[in-house]
Amino acid sequence: MIIDCHGHYTTSPKALADYRDAQVAALKEKKPVVPAKLSVSDDQIRESVEGAQLKLQRDRGTDLTIFSPRAAGMGHHIGDAKTSEYWSTACNDMVHRVVQAFPKNFIGVCQLPQSPGVDPRNCIPELERCVNELGFIGCNLNPDPSGGYWKEPSLADKWWYPLYEKMCELDVPAMVHVSSSCNPAVHHTGAHYIAGDTIAFMQFITADLFKDFPTLKFIIPHGGGAVPYHWGRYRGLAQDLKKPLLKDHLLKNVYFDTCVYHQPGIDLLTKVIPIENILFASEMVGAVRGIDPETGFNYDDTKRYIDKAAIPAADKAKIFEGNAYNVFPRLKAQFAKQTKKN
Amino acid sequence: MIIDCHGHYTTSPKALADYRDAQVAALKEKKPVVPAKLSVSDDQIRESVEGAQLKLQRDRGTDLTIFSPRAAGMGHHIGDAKTSEYWSTACNDMVHRVVQAFPKNFIGVCQLPQSPGVDPRNCIPELERCVNELGFIGCNLNPDPSGGYWKEPSLADKWWYPLYEKMCELDVPAMVHVSSSCNPAVHHTGAHYIAGDTIAFMQFITADLFKDFPTLKFIIPHGGGAVPYHWGRYRGLAQDLKKPLLKDHLLKNVYFDTCVYHQPGIDLLTKVIPIENILFASEMVGAVRGIDPETGFNYDDTKRYIDKAAIPAADKAKIFEGNAYNVFPRLKAQFAKQTKKN
Repeated sequence: MIIDCHGHYTTSPKALADYRDAQVAALKEKKPVVPAKLSVSDDQIRESVEGAQLKLQRDRGTDLTIFSPRAAGMGHHIGDAKTSEYWSTACNDMVHRVVQAFPKNFIGVCQLPQSPGVDPRNCIPELERCVNELGFIGCNLNPDPSGGYWKEPSLADKWWYPLYEKMCELDVPAMVHVSSSCNPAVHHTGAHYIAGDTIAFMQFITADLFKDFPTLKFIIPHGGGAVPYHWGRYRGLAQDLKKPLLKDHLLKNVYFDTCVYHQPGIDLLTKVIPIENILFASEMVGAVRGIDPETGFNYDDTKRYIDKAAIPAADKAKIFEGNAYNVFPRLKAQFAKQTKKN
Repeated sequence: MIIDCHGHYTTSPKALADYRDAQVAALKEKKPVVPAKLSVSDDQIRESVEGAQLKLQRDRGTDLTIFSPRAAGMGHHIGDAKTSEYWSTACNDMVHRVVQAFPKNFIGVCQLPQSPGVDPRNCIPELERCVNELGFIGCNLNPDPSGGYWKEPSLADKWWYPLYEKMCELDVPAMVHVSSSCNPAVHHTGAHYIAGDTIAFMQFITADLFKDFPTLKFIIPHGGGAVPYHWGRYRGLAQDLKKPLLKDHLLKNVYFDTCVYHQPGIDLLTKVIPIENILFASEMVGAVRGIDPETGFNYDDTKRYIDKAAIPAADKAKIFEGNAYNVFPRLKAQFAKQTKKN
């Protein structure tokens, strides 16, 4: 089975966007925001992924997508904690509908109702609901709910510890994923995403978070931002900071996905980062939707790059499937449960 | 001749740091800042680089360093435009002293007296002084004078145009280089530097700056941040934005240095980015000062990586020397002038 650990519901029904628009309008008019009551049919859910994610799974030969709400849509900088609570609930419920419709093809990861400056404890109820009630196996954690201004404490700060305790208790990892940027200097998918990945990794280097949480797991998406390309820099910075070797300092807890959209990038990733720390991912249908004129295939058809990488078949199997079971401890049982029902 | 296009005066005499400390203390006590009157002997200048940059040039087999004030020290977020003016003048004068002491080994690039929210026109007098009077051949431009909060307009915004007009008139490039981070979430050399490089590149992609300034030239340091590793992503994003191919859109104006501190990173850089767009650099004595236990040599001894790269000797010559003459049009004549005198 080929597991794509990084997919967002970028093609969700219009009713979801309409609800968000109404929320934003209410905020503008200083009216109260209200919980979503979306009227979306099962057909609409099926149609929303049939010609997109499902078709691409078939075309590209992948099987299961670990699926979460649209990252750019999380918009934690908009409104307050209540706004984010209602919005996250609506988005997670929609992902759950997709999983229910296609339980062999999707498994859920949730958006958290983060809000700038708000204690991350506020995320715990929604995380518990999604894991315990909806069968989700992880969450997306935004290291910068201010949307491009980096006003939150470092991910290694005790500020986040209550959430980490709950993640460990539930045995779910977090993908460290920023949302859209409200900073006009910082483009979202071309700058904020990649910068965010890089900044988060350095937050982990400078601290000793994983001494406190030996089982806590993070995936850094987009191939780890700049990190593998600058692996020598990060090894050297950790050394100057008198930290252990990176493999001991954080590679039992930090993983990278393969959302790197050309062969030389994937070749570097698989050369530099231990195979055990790499998870297959494409982020389809996502940030880059075109066809690469140099290959004739979609930039984000990352399976092709792994297929062509000069690594043994056993390593490819780890990237495509095996490592995911390690990073998402609930994956195997949840998938069995989902697919048994049908 | 092997030209290192990225060196900072990280070993400057204590008197310079003392002046900065006095400036910061004055700001704290709301007293006026005053111009520097530093008492630094020629011996002190010589000693400050003899055992450091000069020794490393000899040890590593490089010849000339394009030398500018310490990047982390620029601290444009501290004080106001007057603070930055006095501080930049002092720093640039110190670099000039080094160039005067060792004209065969160093050539100057200046710090600009940027200040958050202040019209970049305020940088023009110091740029002119450094180029016309001190013989400097370029400048360092900080895309984020707020120090980690990205409050300035994009580098492609007309906000910067008066400075770009002067750069074109003087025929000097800018290295896009952030300074220290005052944002506690963002580590300076491990996060802000690399994120800054990446953000700046995306600012160039989204705009059409080089239609307005066909001769304007920027160097993106630290191997271009995350950009070469994600070259497919950037080609794809430009395509989605209906921009020309990157080679036509910006590679006549944007260059990358080789401050990437391991062999696989340099191998990717030289494979993905046209050779004409790569300039040799080490940023010694800089962000990463240790010895890589995997090689036994300093992480920042980047000449070794170029030496070992699987590219023709003619390409290495371009990276080591030829491209620098293209990017720094005043380099050849200024070097001849400096070395003739002695």
